[in-house]
Amino acid sequence: MMSELRKTVGVLGPKGSYTEQAALEYFKDCEMKDDFITPESVIEAVVNLNVDYGVVPVENSIHGSVGSVFDSLIINRVVIIGELVLPINHVLAKHPEGEEFKQVLSHEQALAQCSNFLRKNHPKCVMKTSASTSRAAQEVMKKGLINSLVVCSEHAAKVYGLDIIQNNISKRNNNKTRFLIIGNNSTNPTGDDKTSIVFGLKDEPGALYNALSVFKKAGINLTKIESRPTKKRIGDYLFIVDFEGHVEDSGVNKALNELKNSVSFMKVLGSYSSAHY
Amino acid sequence: MMSELRKTVGVLGPKGSYTEQAALEYFKDCEMKDDFITPESVIEAVVNLNVDYGVVPVENSIHGSVGSVFDSLIINRVVIIGELVLPINHVLAKHPEGEEFKQVLSHEQALAQCSNFLRKNHPKCVMKTSASTSRAAQEVMKKGLINSLVVCSEHAAKVYGLDIIQNNISKRNNNKTRFLIIGNNSTNPTGDDKTSIVFGLKDEPGALYNALSVFKKAGINLTKIESRPTKKRIGDYLFIVDFEGHVEDSGVNKALNELKNSVSFMKVLGSYSSAHY
Repeated sequence: MMSELRKTVGVLGPKGSYTEQAALEYFKDCEMKDDFITPESVIEAVVNLNVDYGVVPVENSIHGSVGSVFDSLIINRVVIIGELVLPINHVLAKHPEGEEFKQVLSHEQALAQCSNFLRKNHPKCVMKTSASTSRAAQEVMKKGLINSLVVCSEHAAKVYGLDIIQNNISKRNNNKTRFLIIGNNSTNPTGDDKTSIVFGLKDEPGALYNALSVFKKAGINLTKIESRPTKKRIGDYLFIVDFEGHVEDSGVNKALNELKNSVSFMKVLGSYSSAHY
Repeated sequence: MMSELRKTVGVLGPKGSYTEQAALEYFKDCEMKDDFITPESVIEAVVNLNVDYGVVPVENSIHGSVGSVFDSLIINRVVIIGELVLPINHVLAKHPEGEEFKQVLSHEQALAQCSNFLRKNHPKCVMKTSASTSRAAQEVMKKGLINSLVVCSEHAAKVYGLDIIQNNISKRNNNKTRFLIIGNNSTNPTGDDKTSIVFGLKDEPGALYNALSVFKKAGINLTKIESRPTKKRIGDYLFIVDFEGHVEDSGVNKALNELKNSVSFMKVLGSYSSAHY
């Protein structure tokens, strides 16, 4: 989706991760930095200019939001410049010399999603959790764990040279993850954009209603609204809202200026080309 | 707060837990069942009539909501009959014969909250995590771990006979947990009540605004609104809303009937005496 000089992109690692896959799909050609172990450290690398862009998972259809990403976006001077939704398809894989399997290694969520298949087909294997599906694939090859099965992505199996035994072993077929592309400079309008903002409510009756009425009056369509605890007081929330339009659209700009008067705090997280998932 | 025959109350265990403390404060006199290890299992015990009431933690001022409690309340035929907010104060404790301390045992959140104190006063101790603060207190006494310090509540220290070395060792002084009291029968209005509901949005522009406008028109004051992913689709949420009033109030009743037309799904989780935290 981008045609620029070769850029560096920080992703949740290791090599072969779903986040790396999302970054490859988004940037096509880029220099990947895959040594980050938390979404926050990816965002900090963008802030510190150690990478040009960062890619972080932000929401999964089964497991919900990665709240720490929003916490980090709220406090740092970076912007969302894009989004991408990736279907999550787990495969069962093994070391090329793999045999007499005694354990299945993967991230705990992946193991849970494939538990039906694993119980039925490998009832004697012990489940062993790893920090990520790609870390599991890496470990089996690096340590030569020939008695280990791995649940990971097709991409990770290929990256590490594992043999794929079976595709699509998850019981859920609506498993998708949304990734955000993070940068330092705002993007220009494309004509089909989405904007993400975060705001806090004033301590008064109808506070959220009053905030939403600004969008209603301006005819702006919200595509998402999510609460996030402030960690200060029970029942005290920030709201993360996505809506159709770009901050440079005059209607959006006017509405956001009006919104500032209805809320205790507001920050634009970015305007970017909509992925229409 | 209740004067009835001696009732059985299921709480997150073991004995000495913050949840047991909340139950004691709420019910004064009751038979405690403290062998539950998840909030969901407490709620299921109420459903199956294995206990008369259940008490579950639902929200902490630092760590946010216990989302699984709402997931369980949505699918089960039980009602919220009360709420209670408890200040969370951690103490440093030891076995009465404790000496030459090599480790500190507690729940990982409690260890994190007291990390400044522990690093300063016991820099050589290793942190070891336990399933809960009360489990840590129980283990030190049961196994005679005289080289272990414990971070737990004053209540847990007393229950298990630990010596308290120092009170109030947490760096946060706004640490509070809200508990819900769960039962099978709705409560009568007290004149100072709160109602909790959950609803899903129709897939149309302004859906949340339209839902909230029902409360605005009826002059009903929302005290909380929180989103919760449906786990079906990215960006698909349920909303948990607390407001002032009782479902038997005619104004509230009328508003909820109107709300049903504005949302895809609605369930009243309960009306109960407000704790005003």
